[in-house]
Amino acid sequence: MVDAMEVCGNPSSVHAEGRAAKAVIERARAQIAAAFGADGADIVFTSGSTEGAQLAMAGRNLHAASVEHDAVRAWSVEDLQVSDAGAVSVPDPEISALQLANSETGVIQTLPQGLAVTDATQAFGKLPVAFNWIGATMALISAHKLGGPKGVGAVVLKRGTDLAAQIKGGGQEMGRRSGTENVVGIAGFGAAAEAAAKLLADGVWEQVAALRDIMEAALAEGSPETIFVGKSAKRLPNTSCFATPGWKGETQVMQMDLAGFAISAGSACSSGKVRASAVLTSMGYDETTAQSAVRVSLGPETTETDVLRFAEAWCAKQKKHRARVA
Amino acid sequence: MVDAMEVCGNPSSVHAEGRAAKAVIERARAQIAAAFGADGADIVFTSGSTEGAQLAMAGRNLHAASVEHDAVRAWSVEDLQVSDAGAVSVPDPEISALQLANSETGVIQTLPQGLAVTDATQAFGKLPVAFNWIGATMALISAHKLGGPKGVGAVVLKRGTDLAAQIKGGGQEMGRRSGTENVVGIAGFGAAAEAAAKLLADGVWEQVAALRDIMEAALAEGSPETIFVGKSAKRLPNTSCFATPGWKGETQVMQMDLAGFAISAGSACSSGKVRASAVLTSMGYDETTAQSAVRVSLGPETTETDVLRFAEAWCAKQKKHRARVA
Repeated sequence: MVDAMEVCGNPSSVHAEGRAAKAVIERARAQIAAAFGADGADIVFTSGSTEGAQLAMAGRNLHAASVEHDAVRAWSVEDLQVSDAGAVSVPDPEISALQLANSETGVIQTLPQGLAVTDATQAFGKLPVAFNWIGATMALISAHKLGGPKGVGAVVLKRGTDLAAQIKGGGQEMGRRSGTENVVGIAGFGAAAEAAAKLLADGVWEQVAALRDIMEAALAEGSPETIFVGKSAKRLPNTSCFATPGWKGETQVMQMDLAGFAISAGSACSSGKVRASAVLTSMGYDETTAQSAVRVSLGPETTETDVLRFAEAWCAKQKKHRARVA
Repeated sequence: MVDAMEVCGNPSSVHAEGRAAKAVIERARAQIAAAFGADGADIVFTSGSTEGAQLAMAGRNLHAASVEHDAVRAWSVEDLQVSDAGAVSVPDPEISALQLANSETGVIQTLPQGLAVTDATQAFGKLPVAFNWIGATMALISAHKLGGPKGVGAVVLKRGTDLAAQIKGGGQEMGRRSGTENVVGIAGFGAAAEAAAKLLADGVWEQVAALRDIMEAALAEGSPETIFVGKSAKRLPNTSCFATPGWKGETQVMQMDLAGFAISAGSACSSGKVRASAVLTSMGYDETTAQSAVRVSLGPETTETDVLRFAEAWCAKQKKHRARVA
């Protein structure tokens, strides 16, 4: 990204400076195609998966479930059924959208062949996924979910798919998304995708999953009433979502923040809101339970000491909470 | 921007890391408000003015002229009249959009009070402009036009103005533009706006205008048939657009590129296209003249030696071209 800051040209300009900027973008596009198993597919850069959802879904009335991210829900007919384990039924894949993994619970979906759109934002970089094999026509991905910068993403689509621009003007990205490109961010996205593919191949996320399980075991020991959401399903290796009925998620976030841990209640995009997570209520949890859920995300650099320190701090606060309400 | 790369939190998260990211954004918002004279106005960050045009204009059928940028034209009813000097008549400002300065010619418009939308992308940073004084309800601005990164911009609007989100989801930017924010790009936008305001106050652009005039005088001396577009109007200090009928703009761009100078034919966003600039034909120039136009942009670091070297190189090529077609 720092190198890309020195590239002052506009990628649409034909002079040497413009061509240098274009080269930064095309290099990133190749890095992302390699990391996402999308060789031969089209990659349309966006400002992130929220814009990606608009580009892929606006005006199409695709069917989806209420466990989708708000950016997908904004454009969906929300009528797909969700099981208690978080699995979504998709009777008509060609006119439906389904996430690859959930942002709050980490629950992974089995994608049906011929799916119109998959939101792969959470999964890309943490699961071995090849766009060319998952059977979806389009996928949404974002850089910041795999260690890249915030505010850049892409819609990946099978070559030859019709995709009308939502943001119109100069005709960039083969007419599918106008606007001078975020050259620095796109460079970061490419580099992050390449680095993420290497971490994945090195088995780093299996170690992360093992640490997540150690953390959950320690939390369960200290707080037997805590429910680990989606534990019966396949989940992302780095995500743990757990509910402790009666102890509000927002309170936990604040108490853990004071103790030096950054955790979330709901998805970060909607943390300002006080209503319970639609993801959890869709899975059959009641409002009280859903409001008591928090999400802990681990990263490739998280250590066993980190997760045990967290579990200790959280259990201590939970014990105090229990004593207060008893 | 490099400092902002170390800020890993999501601005919507309430923990310390999230608040740090939020602080980066709010600092940039204050820097931009100060530089753009927009104290008390709302600033909604976008991925640039092309998205800004969608946000400010989609579905509104505002009237505009064909000298506007393609990103504005995409959403306009194109029926406003343009004079030969490039001035646009705006009979109904409340339902119209008008650029503050043109990207190809630099021609500056006098904005009518009550204008719905002004595209201030080219002008911000190069002209003393205060949003609170120009009488427009909304303005579009972009970072890369004032030395900041590409792919970040804002819609500035009078507080209390209705503005429905086009990109929907998490409800960021007070519900007007969803999506995790481009924290690094926004930090760069803020810093660039602050730096641009300082350059402007220091009178740097008056020196740039003087250099532009020196360059144009040298070009006119070497090529008396060359037309300087918009020279009779008020123009941006850094822009020179000139047409040499019979010598295609694209050819000039390539020849100057080989000589080490980056110039443009048309706007960079549409350089891939071969048709003549709509800006010039709107001003009454014929197709042949419009196709022979190029744009040269100067910057705060351009020197007199630079402009004279350019004029010499260009005049030499023009002489050869003239000899060839004679």
